Amino acid sequence: MALDIEAAKRAAAIEAVRNHFPDSPRFVGIGSGTTIVYVVQAIQELGRDLSRVGFVPTGYQSKQLILNAGLLPIEFDALPDNVMIDIAFDGADEVDEELNCIKGGGACLYQEKLVAMRAKEFVCVADHRKLQSRLLTKWPTIPIEVEPKASRQVMARLRVLGSRSPTGAGPFIREGALSKTGPVKTDQDFFIIDAPFPQPLLTGQDIAEGKVRNSHEGIWEVEELARTIKDINGVLGVGIFCGPTGPEAQVAGVIGGQRPIACYFGMADGSVQVRKAPVKRHSIVAQYPRIEPAI
Amino acid sequence: MALDIEAAKRAAAIEAVRNHFPDSPRFVGIGSGTTIVYVVQAIQELGRDLSRVGFVPTGYQSKQLILNAGLLPIEFDALPDNVMIDIAFDGADEVDEELNCIKGGGACLYQEKLVAMRAKEFVCVADHRKLQSRLLTKWPTIPIEVEPKASRQVMARLRVLGSRSPTGAGPFIREGALSKTGPVKTDQDFFIIDAPFPQPLLTGQDIAEGKVRNSHEGIWEVEELARTIKDINGVLGVGIFCGPTGPEAQVAGVIGGQRPIACYFGMADGSVQVRKAPVKRHSIVAQYPRIEPAI
Amino acid sequence: MALDIEAAKRAAAIEAVRNHFPDSPRFVGIGSGTTIVYVVQAIQELGRDLSRVGFVPTGYQSKQLILNAGLLPIEFDALPDNVMIDIAFDGADEVDEELNCIKGGGACLYQEKLVAMRAKEFVCVADHRKLQSRLLTKWPTIPIEVEPKASRQVMARLRVLGSRSPTGAGPFIREGALSKTGPVKTDQDFFIIDAPFPQPLLTGQDIAEGKVRNSHEGIWEVEELARTIKDINGVLGVGIFCGPTGPEAQVAGVIGGQRPIACYFGMADGSVQVRKAPVKRHSIVAQYPRIEPAI
Amino acid sequence: MALDIEAAKRAAAIEAVRNHFPDSPRFVGIGSGTTIVYVVQAIQELGRDLSRVGFVPTGYQSKQLILNAGLLPIEFDALPDNVMIDIAFDGADEVDEELNCIKGGGACLYQEKLVAMRAKEFVCVADHRKLQSRLLTKWPTIPIEVEPKASRQVMARLRVLGSRSPTGAGPFIREGALSKTGPVKTDQDFFIIDAPFPQPLLTGQDIAEGKVRNSHEGIWEVEELARTIKDINGVLGVGIFCGPTGPEAQVAGVIGGQRPIACYFGMADGSVQVRKAPVKRHSIVAQYPRIEPAI
Repeated sequence: MALDIEAAKRAAAIEAVRNHFPDSPRFVGIGSGTTIVYVVQAIQELGRDLSRVGFVPTGYQSKQLILNAGLLPIEFDALPDNVMIDIAFDGADEVDEELNCIKGGGACLYQEKLVAMRAKEFVCVADHRKLQSRLLTKWPTIPIEVEPKASRQVMARLRVLGSRSPTGAGPFIREGALSKTGPVKTDQDFFIIDAPFPQPLLTGQDIAEGKVRNSHEGIWEVEELARTIKDINGVLGVGIFCGPTGPEAQVAGVIGGQRPIACYFGMADGSVQVRKAPVKRHSIVAQYPRIEPAI
Repeated sequence: MALDIEAAKRAAAIEAVRNHFPDSPRFVGIGSGTTIVYVVQAIQELGRDLSRVGFVPTGYQSKQLILNAGLLPIEFDALPDNVMIDIAFDGADEVDEELNCIKGGGACLYQEKLVAMRAKEFVCVADHRKLQSRLLTKWPTIPIEVEPKASRQVMARLRVLGSRSPTGAGPFIREGALSKTGPVKTDQDFFIIDAPFPQPLLTGQDIAEGKVRNSHEGIWEVEELARTIKDINGVLGVGIFCGPTGPEAQVAGVIGGQRPIACYFGMADGSVQVRKAPVKRHSIVAQYPRIEPAI
Repeated sequence: MALDIEAAKRAAAIEAVRNHFPDSPRFVGIGSGTTIVYVVQAIQELGRDLSRVGFVPTGYQSKQLILNAGLLPIEFDALPDNVMIDIAFDGADEVDEELNCIKGGGACLYQEKLVAMRAKEFVCVADHRKLQSRLLTKWPTIPIEVEPKASRQVMARLRVLGSRSPTGAGPFIREGALSKTGPVKTDQDFFIIDAPFPQPLLTGQDIAEGKVRNSHEGIWEVEELARTIKDINGVLGVGIFCGPTGPEAQVAGVIGGQRPIACYFGMADGSVQVRKAPVKRHSIVAQYPRIEPAI
Repeated sequence: MALDIEAAKRAAAIEAVRNHFPDSPRFVGIGSGTTIVYVVQAIQELGRDLSRVGFVPTGYQSKQLILNAGLLPIEFDALPDNVMIDIAFDGADEVDEELNCIKGGGACLYQEKLVAMRAKEFVCVADHRKLQSRLLTKWPTIPIEVEPKASRQVMARLRVLGSRSPTGAGPFIREGALSKTGPVKTDQDFFIIDAPFPQPLLTGQDIAEGKVRNSHEGIWEVEELARTIKDINGVLGVGIFCGPTGPEAQVAGVIGGQRPIACYFGMADGSVQVRKAPVKRHSIVAQYPRIEPAI
């Protein structure tokens, strides 16, 4: 079974790279996690000359992966101004029908979002377990990166927003395997809070169909939930990737989108299923910049 | 003149402390800056027994101030859960008619907001130069605390939101006095971006009077501006203190407000002018938690 | 068996606290690890009024322990100048005949050493597995806290110093349980290198008896080894606690010692064995300050 | 006068680069400070193809310099194992007759030492004010990079080692220009302590001539002083660059030296004076690895 999952990831990676790796990219974003290893392999198996390609890591593990593959890492903050990453590949912990993603199961989400939003196109690679209709179906919580001093106060605020599992458990600080070393630390040396919520509503479907938000019960539209969590003082990053895709953002005149243009899922039967970002999807975030009357 | 300013700050501090220092507080928040020194003096001059009072600092300088005064510092993350700070005192760089504030001129804003939002009441002390009708009248920029790797990308995003001075200058990273040591670092070891914007609109006045927001020109309602900046990936804290006051937040069932209940301004003529938070002021943030139909 | 170990730790903690907890201490250092939990319990079971005692934590886990016990944490850097901690309690991973210790099995060593060296007396509590004749008998490696960028270069240097296990393995960076999150991070957000070495020689016995140091084979006198490792650029802290005890340091006119005055070991048979620091033990470090001719 | 100094730095940089820049280096270390700007200019004026050369920065300012020059920065921790930097250039605040240096006037010293010790050869560039017979002649203090919590305790320890200026002042924490932002922070987010000492003795001259060390008065041999300061718990880096040069270290079988092989000083008269590292200079550090009887 575990082998099947690995084979599924590998198949998805190969197809994603074949379809999306540009002819002569200058910069390529490389995410974190167990699936991205196969993406790097698939890139190398293309047989191209990669000596002039800068690979932009999304953190420590990602940088080690690039270095061990003999590729050239370029730190995010060493990218020239006004230059976009040609394409970014990354995994996800759960993906819904509109390609909103949950990320951060491995404590990496903040730099992943930085890189995704700097990429012309962001492509997601995963296995079939991550393929769901709504977020928070199998994956139980939203990973949130928080400044350590603020963590207990952020949890109090999340409870006000309705963070509660079906069994009544609230948000919690992710602990390391060794309790002695305390909470898991991200690449920014921050903590991760895992916040359970009911399945969030989709902008393009549920809200349009009249489903009702109810913050007392923690039922939010997915983009609104991400923004409301990010608004809490102490939160650096939220493990929901939503809003416009890169191309949508470009059309809207803003810089960078965080929603993937496509997700490749390795299925249990060895096939690869592709979900593409729905066209003309409404996004509350994509409305910037805007001119509007007062509400 | 400089002496007058110091005298003005001192007068405001004395009156603020006299009117607001509780009878037997358990925890008192102490902000950062040049004015707060007089607040600590004024607290000591009350002649109370302070040996059982924990003073919660908002950063390195604030903690040194508490230690040097012989008072007991209690770290923010050592506060017991579910216990509020009785009162928090802090300065501001500019205060508008509805008591929204700009803070962060001295690079301190993130922990200040944490402490203000943990306090039952937040009282602001300043001199007459900070007293304005709208924010960004004399104080030119909004201080924003950002994760260093993201800083250039955050600036690009701020330009999309209309960050521009009247002379056309955009946001910039605050540099230390010694260029060799690079940007100023906050207590969280992050950078500060100073972002110029036109004066933001007041929720309770300008928007109600039909003034029009225009994000192309960077004209935003003040709370919306704060939230939109905070929503940028890479931003940890925004130096606008707005939204509900502590008591308003309590009524709304949320925890903690960041807008002061009162501001004390030391005037040029030696008097002290007090602005109190307007009653029944509309706040878009105070709407949580809410039950509402889809838009 | 596991229960026996816990009982042994508890017995040692009770006796250590009974013999060493001062009548009315102002500051008490609290270390990290599984044994120190019993020390805090034993302190509380003394039935004293602890409301005026400041407990100085040695890191995140230690601070949580103090907070959860309802005691008052005082940050190390909030201690008044020129005031010593009355007594510090901590565990150890291995203790030799002269009471040199290895610490850092739980990634905590740097702040432990800060606190031990600020204490008038440092008392160690452990179980019988930690009681050995020489260091590196059962515990295989010396934990070393390093600045992350330097970690691979520090390992190269350690190999030059003879860091090698009997099977030929060299030093390694300690990884977290989740490979995705990368190396374990300390409370200073640094990495831990675990460096294997042969058993180091004791100043007071082996060197006096003429045993020969041989840095090609990694055989060093214990204090010299600690200093030589600390001298490497990139090393913040070394998990060997050696040199003078607190009282020895005071006599020598230096401030603070890191070697315990006594170690309490909970034995397998339920008894507690005490090792006291040998009197008049020679220490190369205790020679400061000194006036000496050129070599 | 200021212009003369700049011209002197520029002349020294040009000659240092002309004499030492390798034919086709793979990696070149670039230090921090005002002089290094001219080194980068001089490298570019060589007219070579630099597109395949990785420039290893020593911190934030250095990385910006490399980026702004359109060169390719390679992070220190992205260097392949077992690969040395071909040459490193850096400035200094004072240089003695044996080419020991003081560095850290601009708060950069730790990464400079990392890079110097990874370089086959380290070349120093400065102006005539830095050219002295002994360290601490004109430059008053040794910059020391310390973990913030430990800083006051480190200062206490430094006083025991004799840190005192002729006027009796002791070591101090370097403050930023804005007192509100607190101490200067290094690229590692640590503090800098500036520690005054009398001029240290030279291994190869003063000690050989029988000059007497006296730690009561703070008179130390220069390498011994550096090691003794580094040995203090809380110290990450010491701004004395001493011990073997790169080539000396290689001969001794250790990895990396921190003392420059040559220093280029731009003189007031427009000439450039070169000091080369003395041959066969005795170094206590270069004795590793060693086999020796017990003392």
